[in-house]
Amino acid sequence: MDPEQQRLAEGFLYTDQYQLTMAQLYFRMGLHERRAQFDHFFRRYPNYGSHQAGYCVNAGLEWLLQWMRSAHITDQDIEFLANQRGPGGVRTFGDDFLRWLKRVGGFDAISLRAIPEGRVVHPDVPLTVVEGPLAIAQILETPLLNLLNYQTLIATKAARIREVARKSTVLEFGLRRGPERGANAGGRAALIGGADFTSNVALSHLLSLPPKGTHAHSMVQVFMALGEGELAAFRAYAEVYPDNCLLLVDTVDTLGSGVPNAITVFEELRRAGHRPVGIRLDSGDLAYLSIQAARMLDAAGFPDTVIVLSNELDELNIWQITSQIAEEAPRYGVDPDRLIRRLVYGVGTRLITSAGQSALDGVYKLVAVEADGEMRPAIKISETIAKTINPGNKRAWRLYDRRGLATADVLTLADEDPTDQRELLLRHPADHTKYRTLRRSEISEIEPLLVEVLREGRLVADLPPLEELRRRRQADVERLDPGVRRLVTPHIYHVSLSSRLWDLKQALIAEAKARNGVEATS
Amino acid sequence: MDPEQQRLAEGFLYTDQYQLTMAQLYFRMGLHERRAQFDHFFRRYPNYGSHQAGYCVNAGLEWLLQWMRSAHITDQDIEFLANQRGPGGVRTFGDDFLRWLKRVGGFDAISLRAIPEGRVVHPDVPLTVVEGPLAIAQILETPLLNLLNYQTLIATKAARIREVARKSTVLEFGLRRGPERGANAGGRAALIGGADFTSNVALSHLLSLPPKGTHAHSMVQVFMALGEGELAAFRAYAEVYPDNCLLLVDTVDTLGSGVPNAITVFEELRRAGHRPVGIRLDSGDLAYLSIQAARMLDAAGFPDTVIVLSNELDELNIWQITSQIAEEAPRYGVDPDRLIRRLVYGVGTRLITSAGQSALDGVYKLVAVEADGEMRPAIKISETIAKTINPGNKRAWRLYDRRGLATADVLTLADEDPTDQRELLLRHPADHTKYRTLRRSEISEIEPLLVEVLREGRLVADLPPLEELRRRRQADVERLDPGVRRLVTPHIYHVSLSSRLWDLKQALIAEAKARNGVEATS
Repeated sequence: MDPEQQRLAEGFLYTDQYQLTMAQLYFRMGLHERRAQFDHFFRRYPNYGSHQAGYCVNAGLEWLLQWMRSAHITDQDIEFLANQRGPGGVRTFGDDFLRWLKRVGGFDAISLRAIPEGRVVHPDVPLTVVEGPLAIAQILETPLLNLLNYQTLIATKAARIREVARKSTVLEFGLRRGPERGANAGGRAALIGGADFTSNVALSHLLSLPPKGTHAHSMVQVFMALGEGELAAFRAYAEVYPDNCLLLVDTVDTLGSGVPNAITVFEELRRAGHRPVGIRLDSGDLAYLSIQAARMLDAAGFPDTVIVLSNELDELNIWQITSQIAEEAPRYGVDPDRLIRRLVYGVGTRLITSAGQSALDGVYKLVAVEADGEMRPAIKISETIAKTINPGNKRAWRLYDRRGLATADVLTLADEDPTDQRELLLRHPADHTKYRTLRRSEISEIEPLLVEVLREGRLVADLPPLEELRRRRQADVERLDPGVRRLVTPHIYHVSLSSRLWDLKQALIAEAKARNGVEATS
Repeated sequence: MDPEQQRLAEGFLYTDQYQLTMAQLYFRMGLHERRAQFDHFFRRYPNYGSHQAGYCVNAGLEWLLQWMRSAHITDQDIEFLANQRGPGGVRTFGDDFLRWLKRVGGFDAISLRAIPEGRVVHPDVPLTVVEGPLAIAQILETPLLNLLNYQTLIATKAARIREVARKSTVLEFGLRRGPERGANAGGRAALIGGADFTSNVALSHLLSLPPKGTHAHSMVQVFMALGEGELAAFRAYAEVYPDNCLLLVDTVDTLGSGVPNAITVFEELRRAGHRPVGIRLDSGDLAYLSIQAARMLDAAGFPDTVIVLSNELDELNIWQITSQIAEEAPRYGVDPDRLIRRLVYGVGTRLITSAGQSALDGVYKLVAVEADGEMRPAIKISETIAKTINPGNKRAWRLYDRRGLATADVLTLADEDPTDQRELLLRHPADHTKYRTLRRSEISEIEPLLVEVLREGRLVADLPPLEELRRRRQADVERLDPGVRRLVTPHIYHVSLSSRLWDLKQALIAEAKARNGVEATS
């Protein structure tokens, strides 16, 4: 794509064809300007095969809002639609509809509530609630899901890596194998979810972070091809970056030449009054090599240099590495805790692609539509009751127990306020036999989760800087039960419905089945 | 990102920090304008866990070239770099280097050879060969990999789906769960690799294809919420799109209401002189439901309507569905072959994310650098000989056997021409015990794979339309041995080195080990 094509390809028509054909249908039926409400939520935590998430981290909202502001329908867009033809050469879109679309021009009539970016979120809870004219809110489905699903997926993966990395620095290195231009969104989400820095220069600039990096094997290769060796390459690096000297030691032979050559250069730097930063290991048994490298660096008087690890890292690999170090380091006289504290993790491919589970199953479902001046709740029945949506205009709340830990998210009708209630009956969203009663005294805090973000296209919320999004994530993660934070077979966090919402859902299911001639018990 | 931020975020600095620090190092050492050559290749076919690819489909080149043309370094980029500071507040980049970078301005000095888009490709064969000033060719590494790896990954997945879909239409539906703005590249790659159309409106526009789609559950829900039912929704759709009427039948009860209601509407359309298009199934046992739906449609006199299937489809699911139909359809008096021919596959998430293997391991390795006026081959040794690169300026050839099927790709030195040779000795790239000799008479064709694309920034190759890329892919796939095309445990396609290239590689390995004080046998 050239830049002009890209503007087109990421503009108002960055949506699915059926959104536009449905929009025209609503237009023809006189329904296009009815107020409608759609909930965006996901159904299942990412499941990576051998391990699975017990919570997600919400991300992507700011870039969605910016996209909505910039996605104005252009004359070129209208012309393309006007020229679309179906079977028999019939034009797909009529001039009446296109004139209306041109006049509407974009998403200025949309109102939006959302759970703020960086917050911990759970299945079935609306992360974003869209209200606006039916046809326009319908067209927004695809870009909204595109811009939110992926960032939430990656922020969640990053939070898992943050859990195992503990206090170590995590560097996001994924640009080269990330999903083309989506890699910037992936990098941003990683930084919200748990990475400290990224190697992506432009993204760092955008987010006011210093980009991080060392050097590649190719630098050592250049010197070798020119008849010099690894040591010459390291010396050149130290000469140019005497106060930021971090050397990649595995181009030739990590322990046989890389680490000894690095130490030689570090000694030269020290004599010249500089502090070497450390080494990077990018292949082999990273646990074993980091123990041996630490031993050699310690013996040479560089106990404070960092050891950056990279090469297909993810939460399980890091866990394996630290477990192996805990076991093996003492045999070589290396203090495992001190070694683990000096590690830095460079995490690339497996973070930016959420390896093992490469998509979040976020959906966008109609929950209410205007009729006779009021919002009428809408239902969608599925084969499984678990997939049947929670209808109507709702509020979402988080309940904290006496320990101050989150114990459940609760969905209620819009006019319900659980803070007023002495006792809360929490119903499982699908299984009618499962419910529990919480007395108000067992609850230390009841927090509303959704905040108003857009009021008819106008921004009415702050879009805080990255630092604040990270603070939210950290605070929320710390208020989870440790069982929910487990990397493997985490505890199930409760998402419940209020009694009144449950009753509404059952009534709508029965009504829908009756109207469509299906037995209510089927 | 707003549009201004996006230009920055996808511009010249869309690279890793270490590329820039290495570039400055080369500048300081006077090496920055040395001619250097880098090979881009992948090491392993995608492995999806239970199944794996036996070939890849090359994609992404056109968009890389367009990115290179538009990625000029801006004053803002320079200012950002000038303000970067390392430990102790020292500026990372000096004014001398930044002046040089500003003067260079972009990638106009880069020459590039590549295997054309759409062609079948294999591990270790250079897909792209970059030659240019060392510092600039180094900076190109990250964006080149970013822009090529993902498209090749997705085109490969699409080719697998094409294999099982046989002659059925495949629709790409992945935008909503694709990787944010990378979804356009994913959609394009899917269309190169095997999808016929996409639901992505803007991308279709860009590629001059008609976008495809039906309607969503939400349309039926709207009518239900307004006190009407599925049948009213279907009638409205038929009224607006009488010649393009494709109805989603699973909002309420697929066989109990959806298909019967669709048939009612189809009969009304037929009486009015229109031809209904078909139905879509998006949940449940798609094989069983499509058999039952086909039976009902046939009985009602609509044997030519299509049945679109969607819901987490990929090559294995489609394989399962068609196998089950072959087994089960006769029991219900339905001709399985005829049913399979009327199926259309809507493939979304699992295609656009390459589910099971979410990244291609494409790398970019220095293979030669200028010294004393000539290009000196460069080597990188790894722990495993399989990961040791193939050095020097090379050519890549494809050999076809007497049946006209591709039997091996061969890498040779630049001055070798296998078409001149009576006998070819093909060596395994890593295992010295494995080689085979092919007589010229056993080979029906020897085809050079790399074509010149950029000569010092100037485009010297055609960038053909999508249709041509698809034609190449189809022709190449048809010239593969059926064993290589298998979805599960495919045969290994041979990639070999010429004797002279093998000898060069061994000599460089020995030399590198000797120079760095490592025993040659280690």
